[in-house]
Amino acid sequence: MAEEVQVLGSWASPFSKRVEMALKFKGVEYEYIEQDLKNKSPLLLNYNPVHKKVPVLLHNGKPIAESLIILEYIDDTWQQGPPILPKDPYQRAHARFWAKFVDDKCMPQVWKACWSEGEEREKAMEEASKALEFLENEIKGKKFFGGDNVGLVDFSANFLAYWCGILAELSGLQFLTEEKYPNLTKWADEFCGCSFVKENLPDKGKMVHVFNGLTKAYTSTV
Amino acid sequence: MAEEVQVLGSWASPFSKRVEMALKFKGVEYEYIEQDLKNKSPLLLNYNPVHKKVPVLLHNGKPIAESLIILEYIDDTWQQGPPILPKDPYQRAHARFWAKFVDDKCMPQVWKACWSEGEEREKAMEEASKALEFLENEIKGKKFFGGDNVGLVDFSANFLAYWCGILAELSGLQFLTEEKYPNLTKWADEFCGCSFVKENLPDKGKMVHVFNGLTKAYTSTV
Repeated sequence: MAEEVQVLGSWASPFSKRVEMALKFKGVEYEYIEQDLKNKSPLLLNYNPVHKKVPVLLHNGKPIAESLIILEYIDDTWQQGPPILPKDPYQRAHARFWAKFVDDKCMPQVWKACWSEGEEREKAMEEASKALEFLENEIKGKKFFGGDNVGLVDFSANFLAYWCGILAELSGLQFLTEEKYPNLTKWADEFCGCSFVKENLPDKGKMVHVFNGLTKAYTSTV
Repeated sequence: MAEEVQVLGSWASPFSKRVEMALKFKGVEYEYIEQDLKNKSPLLLNYNPVHKKVPVLLHNGKPIAESLIILEYIDDTWQQGPPILPKDPYQRAHARFWAKFVDDKCMPQVWKACWSEGEEREKAMEEASKALEFLENEIKGKKFFGGDNVGLVDFSANFLAYWCGILAELSGLQFLTEEKYPNLTKWADEFCGCSFVKENLPDKGKMVHVFNGLTKAYTSTV
């Protein structure tokens, strides 16, 4: 039986894009099935009944949910091609730590800052800045978070490399400025320049156009 | 050089206890260093500068933080002894999914239900019940979440097996009732009966006594 790899995703979701980028990185062919997050399909509800969210990876009909878990699955499954996680246990733990940090301490805060006001916005901005400082320090002296090559943390931080800039433009807030985060902005350029990333970035104009819709969708795509 | 394994933990924290239980399960000897969460030590601040939380595993002086990441590290490092994660990539992803589910969808909701009132409490109870139903379904027909043997999800759910019952008594709320969750309560008994668990459960009387203090500490131990 030929191998069947499918991704249930949403075109504007950085979480879906993590999975597509990683599959392209590994050279794994897949079928992409766009999901309408405002009107969830029986397919999505059937394959992710717990969270009802994208992305879901279907490998020969078996579903895997949660983007960071999918990235680990991709690495565990397709051992040919470049590694997503390092082999060394300590380096693996290090990568997992920072990938989780991006999910827990960066993305929600940046998002919150964009869609809140007053004191709440100020607090979220402060938390986002603090988190970005940690990442600025972590990337210092390295090309990618994974070292010379892209790895788990780079994929997990795709939101910061691309989506964050669009959000900054739309909200008028400054997140990743070159002045404040010279290493992170350099990394963002490097990362977005990789073919498997560049080919998978959603169209900026289209994103700006439907951004209000995306606000609602965000909570369905973590 | 002899191997040095140390755990910076807090005696009442289920997150710390996950790590101790897993080390005992693997037969890895370690030194335990109790941390005062109200007055954090330079050791803790030095080894977990990002989150400033327990547990931290120190392996030959190298720190690893975040309890689920530590469990993966233990499994990656000490490959002798029983496995914490299955070898099969799909089963690994499955275990990671439910371990994350416990952290994201069960523990915060149970905790919130205990320390909130009125509508907020009702909402948290409803969410906790829904999450526990998913787990009840997941454990059905199995001895442990890991199958015949304890694994990642069992360690991650230690809170439900022991702490949850004490919280229920103190708050007057009913979480894991045998009537509603026959399989989960059976699992809790099985799990708490394992030697590497039983030997690591904090004293109930002591926990009840200092419970008010624990309320504050909880937010420092995730």
